[in-house]
Amino acid sequence: MTPRRDSKWWGWGDPAVEPQLDEEALATLRERVGELEPWPVAAELEGFELPPAEPLPRALVEAVGEAGVFTGAEDRLRHAAGCGYADLARLRGGRLEAAPDAVLVPRDAGAVSRVLELCAAEGVAVVPFGGGTSVVGGVEPLRGGHSRLVSLDLATLRGVAVDRRSLTARLGAGLRGPEAEAALRAEGVVLGHYPQSFEYATIGGFAATRSAGQASSGYGRFDSLVGAVRLIAPAGELRTLETPHTAAGPALRELVVGSEGIFGVIPEVTVRVRPEPAQRRYEAWIAEDFEAGAEIVRALAQGPGLPDVIRVSDAEETEVSLMLSGPRGLAGRAFEGYLGLRRRRGGCLIVIGVEGDEESAARRRALSVRALRRGGAAYLGQGAGRSWEHGRFQGPYLRDTLMGMGAMVETLETSHTWSRLHELHAAVGAAIRDSLDGQGTPGLVFCHLSHAYADGASLYFTFISRARRGAEVEQWREVKRAASQAIVAGGGTITHHHAVGRDHAPYMQAEIGSTGIDVLQAVKDQLDPTGIMNPGKLLP
Amino acid sequence: MTPRRDSKWWGWGDPAVEPQLDEEALATLRERVGELEPWPVAAELEGFELPPAEPLPRALVEAVGEAGVFTGAEDRLRHAAGCGYADLARLRGGRLEAAPDAVLVPRDAGAVSRVLELCAAEGVAVVPFGGGTSVVGGVEPLRGGHSRLVSLDLATLRGVAVDRRSLTARLGAGLRGPEAEAALRAEGVVLGHYPQSFEYATIGGFAATRSAGQASSGYGRFDSLVGAVRLIAPAGELRTLETPHTAAGPALRELVVGSEGIFGVIPEVTVRVRPEPAQRRYEAWIAEDFEAGAEIVRALAQGPGLPDVIRVSDAEETEVSLMLSGPRGLAGRAFEGYLGLRRRRGGCLIVIGVEGDEESAARRRALSVRALRRGGAAYLGQGAGRSWEHGRFQGPYLRDTLMGMGAMVETLETSHTWSRLHELHAAVGAAIRDSLDGQGTPGLVFCHLSHAYADGASLYFTFISRARRGAEVEQWREVKRAASQAIVAGGGTITHHHAVGRDHAPYMQAEIGSTGIDVLQAVKDQLDPTGIMNPGKLLP
Repeated sequence: MTPRRDSKWWGWGDPAVEPQLDEEALATLRERVGELEPWPVAAELEGFELPPAEPLPRALVEAVGEAGVFTGAEDRLRHAAGCGYADLARLRGGRLEAAPDAVLVPRDAGAVSRVLELCAAEGVAVVPFGGGTSVVGGVEPLRGGHSRLVSLDLATLRGVAVDRRSLTARLGAGLRGPEAEAALRAEGVVLGHYPQSFEYATIGGFAATRSAGQASSGYGRFDSLVGAVRLIAPAGELRTLETPHTAAGPALRELVVGSEGIFGVIPEVTVRVRPEPAQRRYEAWIAEDFEAGAEIVRALAQGPGLPDVIRVSDAEETEVSLMLSGPRGLAGRAFEGYLGLRRRRGGCLIVIGVEGDEESAARRRALSVRALRRGGAAYLGQGAGRSWEHGRFQGPYLRDTLMGMGAMVETLETSHTWSRLHELHAAVGAAIRDSLDGQGTPGLVFCHLSHAYADGASLYFTFISRARRGAEVEQWREVKRAASQAIVAGGGTITHHHAVGRDHAPYMQAEIGSTGIDVLQAVKDQLDPTGIMNPGKLLP
Repeated sequence: MTPRRDSKWWGWGDPAVEPQLDEEALATLRERVGELEPWPVAAELEGFELPPAEPLPRALVEAVGEAGVFTGAEDRLRHAAGCGYADLARLRGGRLEAAPDAVLVPRDAGAVSRVLELCAAEGVAVVPFGGGTSVVGGVEPLRGGHSRLVSLDLATLRGVAVDRRSLTARLGAGLRGPEAEAALRAEGVVLGHYPQSFEYATIGGFAATRSAGQASSGYGRFDSLVGAVRLIAPAGELRTLETPHTAAGPALRELVVGSEGIFGVIPEVTVRVRPEPAQRRYEAWIAEDFEAGAEIVRALAQGPGLPDVIRVSDAEETEVSLMLSGPRGLAGRAFEGYLGLRRRRGGCLIVIGVEGDEESAARRRALSVRALRRGGAAYLGQGAGRSWEHGRFQGPYLRDTLMGMGAMVETLETSHTWSRLHELHAAVGAAIRDSLDGQGTPGLVFCHLSHAYADGASLYFTFISRARRGAEVEQWREVKRAASQAIVAGGGTITHHHAVGRDHAPYMQAEIGSTGIDVLQAVKDQLDPTGIMNPGKLLP
């Protein structure tokens, strides 16, 4: 099997999908961020500059077989970066300073095991690679003192075994979201895990990064769906039992989930699945303001009927959604519901979605409607809700469009308790705005609340500004630093679901303290004594 | 503060509670297990034989203050054993071969920290002590190569801080179940954690052992209620953030929860709480057989309306419950509902309980009733359900009564997926029966299914037989070994909620493999480099 080559090498997803902004949206954008200078992709794939590749030890080639070793420029390039803004900015620039020496595609878990053993013996760094959709530098080819580095593409690990009676499924790490979902639907069940990266990200990546889908309030985050894991580490293999629960000591499953490749490779996971929902209903509402919207979500999350999807945009995000959904807005999006919204400037958009059997979906919708009305929200209809649902995976495509126009576009997220959420919302928003203003690139900064819990919720920020051409990554790094510091100062987590990777590693000290870092390092030293696994990620 | 001395030193709980069996129950018991020979408590507290105590380093005494050091026989004895059958059998025998040299009661978390630092420096083993209710040897004073050992009683760590808006509470480790619940009710919230040990066990113990309460299907197991933890280890302190969720790497919280004192001391945890339920309704039903009862639970657990409490007794347990609830049965228990049951021999008792606001409780009850009727179960009424609820903490008292009559009484538990649950039920039951028969002490062996999940449930076995006098612990060990081997062979977990302690440590290799054990040992070496923390527990 060859590594996948079906997405843009310089951006997100299907090259044929090219959303365009209409004149009205363009005008509003210019008004808010200033004139933009087109930012074309600098090079063709053929002319892209990569560092030369070091030759691999012969034994390693034998371990995967010649047919599983890829040293061509395209494959090296496609495995050299994730899908964060900084990654895409560098790809757009036409050269990378680092790339794997080769991409290895092991046939099966046994071959993964042999590869890690050999790489440990030979001192070859290994970056486990699923969909390559990390937005935090999770697949960056950092060598960590080793002279050689391979990207270990897990695309062949595609097993599916459903236990219909226990509603569990063992899924291979290499399955993309839609592939796993299709295989499960064939058995009448679903996973219900829909992160924005769903179409290209993989099961292994979901587990390794503690991914959270847009319907996590109903179906659960990926980590809460994982029942059992398997980890292949250089020092050995770890499996947890496939039982619904155990009190046999610390949960090793929770040490593997979220380990981001620094301990080893997750070849498969056993997840909890559900019967395919008979009903799906998405709809939009508008609240007076962000506080009122958040209170509605809190009431629902602390009661018995939280919807599967619930999100509240702040006033700025609501306005931007409106701008991007004009009459000739994004292809395929029909935001007719926003016509109502247009009459309520300053209001905040709420999207709710309920899925499940007819009775349960109807009941939870009724509970939501009651809370929404109590909280003073007005109904916008199913049209806007469906538009959101249909466009739920479109954000990264639009980012490519905006970058091509000369914009910096990035998202970041955190979570906190209800008691401290608004304070954090204000502080992080201000930090991003100040950093953009300070760099002479004022922009749009907006946020939504999602992934609701009884004790709090996540905040998901987006910012758009003019890219500082020639210093795109530096500009981004400066904003990211300001936002991260504000998150840490406010007691929020550095990441609710984007993971740590390279970008958040400097904030792990604030997150888990030096004792926490020492513990993770001790686990790494045990499982990966020569430090070959995904160097430079997760730990500072 | 002195260590607590309010429970029986040789058995469970309040000395004034002495449940007696009526003549009918006694006759049935004799018929099933043979004649019993009274087994009195061999010694008064004053005459109890303990090994001499080693003197403590002076600095350690200074760290807690003279007022926090207890070297009297009663306190040493009360901290020398947990509440498992083997513990109680030895206490009943009038002598122990091991006891702590002293009981230390640190004033606060700072003192805990100083004690651990000094013990690490001086090579003094430390057993963290909450309620002392472990049934797996979790507080056994094993020295692990150290010449001295102290029991660290955490009774003074009693802080309560409720965040009503976020529905979280920070609770001190030393609070007993009822103390925590009373403090929370004063703020209008509850934890909803009711293990059988509720009345004497502590918050710290719940966290350290991954305790699961009888209402775990509704409120969640204790581990799922924990939002943030703090761990004081000899090598430093670990805290996790008080945010509803984080994807910042492996979950250190899950490494601390379930660590059973081998890494350090948990001085406090932040838990999720709920508004006090307006409604509580317990009721009993009877299913045709165990399979039919289990199918009802599976349907409910895989649907939208699982009750807070649900348990299905197998035919043997149903019969024993009936036997123990005769007209002059246990004090305060009024099993009038069993009158109906008596007419359906071979049936299986189901208890369900729903709690919450009126609407939610009514709805979930209605869903349960529908599933119960569909599954062919017959209603026995609220009386039997309430009796179960009122007697839910009485089991350990009855064990003392039965032991005094000359019986061995023990419980053990596991969990598995629905696909493999019945096979495991049969295998473990057979293993216990065979072991009892083989030892010439045939007995009662029964089981209930509880703690239901979409993917499976736990099985909770009880066995009662004549005690082999003079070889009580050997007899017990033999049955325990047989049952544990059957659990391991069937792929179940060695413990769903009793924890590992000393008794299950030999089965951790089967549970998590050698790589898993190496990982936990690496964490321990990092946090507790001199190996003073709770030696001989959890790791084989």
